[in-house]
Amino acid sequence: MSEHSISAVSAVQALKWSDRGLEVLDQRLLPGDMVYQTFDTAQGVAEAIASMRVRGAPAIGIAAAYGVVLGARAAYARDPAHWKRAIEDDFAVLARSRPTAVNLFWALDRMREAMAAIEGDPVPALLAIARRIHEDDLAANLAMGELGADILAGCKGVLTHCNTGALATGGYGTALGVIRSTWRRGALERVYATETRPWSQGARLTVWELGQDRIPATLLADSAAAWLMKSGAVHWVVVGADRIAANGDVANKIGTYSLAVLARHHGVKLMVVAPTSTVDWATAAGGDIVVEERDPRELLHPVFLGSDSVIDAWNPVFDVTPAALIDAIVTEAGVVANPSPHTMAALRGKAR
Amino acid sequence: MSEHSISAVSAVQALKWSDRGLEVLDQRLLPGDMVYQTFDTAQGVAEAIASMRVRGAPAIGIAAAYGVVLGARAAYARDPAHWKRAIEDDFAVLARSRPTAVNLFWALDRMREAMAAIEGDPVPALLAIARRIHEDDLAANLAMGELGADILAGCKGVLTHCNTGALATGGYGTALGVIRSTWRRGALERVYATETRPWSQGARLTVWELGQDRIPATLLADSAAAWLMKSGAVHWVVVGADRIAANGDVANKIGTYSLAVLARHHGVKLMVVAPTSTVDWATAAGGDIVVEERDPRELLHPVFLGSDSVIDAWNPVFDVTPAALIDAIVTEAGVVANPSPHTMAALRGKAR
Repeated sequence: MSEHSISAVSAVQALKWSDRGLEVLDQRLLPGDMVYQTFDTAQGVAEAIASMRVRGAPAIGIAAAYGVVLGARAAYARDPAHWKRAIEDDFAVLARSRPTAVNLFWALDRMREAMAAIEGDPVPALLAIARRIHEDDLAANLAMGELGADILAGCKGVLTHCNTGALATGGYGTALGVIRSTWRRGALERVYATETRPWSQGARLTVWELGQDRIPATLLADSAAAWLMKSGAVHWVVVGADRIAANGDVANKIGTYSLAVLARHHGVKLMVVAPTSTVDWATAAGGDIVVEERDPRELLHPVFLGSDSVIDAWNPVFDVTPAALIDAIVTEAGVVANPSPHTMAALRGKAR
Repeated sequence: MSEHSISAVSAVQALKWSDRGLEVLDQRLLPGDMVYQTFDTAQGVAEAIASMRVRGAPAIGIAAAYGVVLGARAAYARDPAHWKRAIEDDFAVLARSRPTAVNLFWALDRMREAMAAIEGDPVPALLAIARRIHEDDLAANLAMGELGADILAGCKGVLTHCNTGALATGGYGTALGVIRSTWRRGALERVYATETRPWSQGARLTVWELGQDRIPATLLADSAAAWLMKSGAVHWVVVGADRIAANGDVANKIGTYSLAVLARHHGVKLMVVAPTSTVDWATAAGGDIVVEERDPRELLHPVFLGSDSVIDAWNPVFDVTPAALIDAIVTEAGVVANPSPHTMAALRGKAR
């Protein structure tokens, strides 16, 4: 797949490769300003990840792969005989940039494996692998988009949570990819997006992405989702996943579990969209997933931070939605309807 | 009830009367700064209401009553023979300050009724009425606090939404009054407060009020409430009401309906706390209540406001919770368990 075809699937790209280096869209400035910054060193790419200019697990993995290409290019130019040893520092810096992102380590491992067989200038071979990682992610997104759109056939209103679009992935999206594909088929009339506090990815990123693609979207406060469902405006909730347990329980952005309970109450269906690499077969059930809690200061005014304060904040990053509340898990290898240990095991066979 | 007793029930007071005029706590600056500003004219009080320095329907009504006292004082000083005609402008300005607040009109009507019988200096008589409005609201809050605390006996964790405390009322609170009374009885360990987007009354006002009274409180994103309920930390959700229909359906801050559905799913109970003046006997059911929608700009980044934008926001102020999801409505005239047209009719008899 060429550079051109990557750019064709969405109006937005988080990452663009050129001879000058990796162009990174600074997501911290969205939606106010759309600024690309070019990073021509591995250290620079690591800084772009650490500083949250680029976010979303798949996008981080892709950026890190291009970072290795930049590190190898510089090391080979300095000393063609010892570039493999010289770029170990770059691997270390990239690995430290976001320590919990599984896709980051997976991408770095793929780049390292490819290095072994390289003789001479490493740039063409490593760039080919980085592009492949990028293109494979995009291809998986497109495959999920079609599978999900088949299920959403005729659906006029969907609700999504957080940002799972081109900004978070190789350029199309998981849940937002399904929404894009459904929109292109013509029946979908409007996308509803939750604000997604406390980071406001819905308000800052998701409606911006949809606007770039001219897909009509309506932003609402997280707490208004139940009232929206009661109005009859949405028939599916479509979300991504950070981790899927072997029984189909799904860890995802805080608020997903709330939407799942509310959807079931209102007869609205819930679709989870994620590549098979998100399934953690070693985790039997969602109860085994430890939910990270972030700094209370993301919610709390500084006035409450004194040591004698009786006020604190509870700021879980994720919650876990039980499989029983999920109507479909869509992966690039196929769809799991009514996920359970049994139906998930069938997916595992296909994904292998 | 004296000035002293008003200040004794809560560490916080939105409104304080002195010979200099009405001292208003500027709620727009909370929780960063606690600043009282003294208004010595009716026009100034109207401006304090219109500019949201003071908010909460009961507090607005009380402020307006004191505003009439200030208007009468000035008019009588200028022209003792014609002060009643002269303060008509003040009534008009006060009535325009927040046109949808029912308590505002109710308080102005009470002040106007009292004017008819006044001869000579109107200040003592009008001030007595204004104080009575203030004290009656506080007394109703205290009565609801005791009734609600009886129900919450032994409850260790409660969740509340929006701000229903001393800042919004005569000085104690409706839902937050019940929480205060329950806290004083000793079993309650922690109050959980939702952020309450998009105005963030929970994050700015509720946890600040609780902190002033040294009641331990934990702030959370609205979307985290379901995950909190699943953890078992809360056994009751306690909220206020903006309007209660004759069948017990409750219109309240957006997000209340969401909490009601989530509470029922998790076996958590829901209490609504409001004075009988909040019951609109002329409205048969919640479906008849028109829910106001506010400016999308409260949610939407300015970049989305262009005329060719495909992005908008849906910003309902209230939602309606059906009586079937409510376990108890607590008023100063008594408690309605499992509200229905039948049990609400019994309340109507008591309130009369």
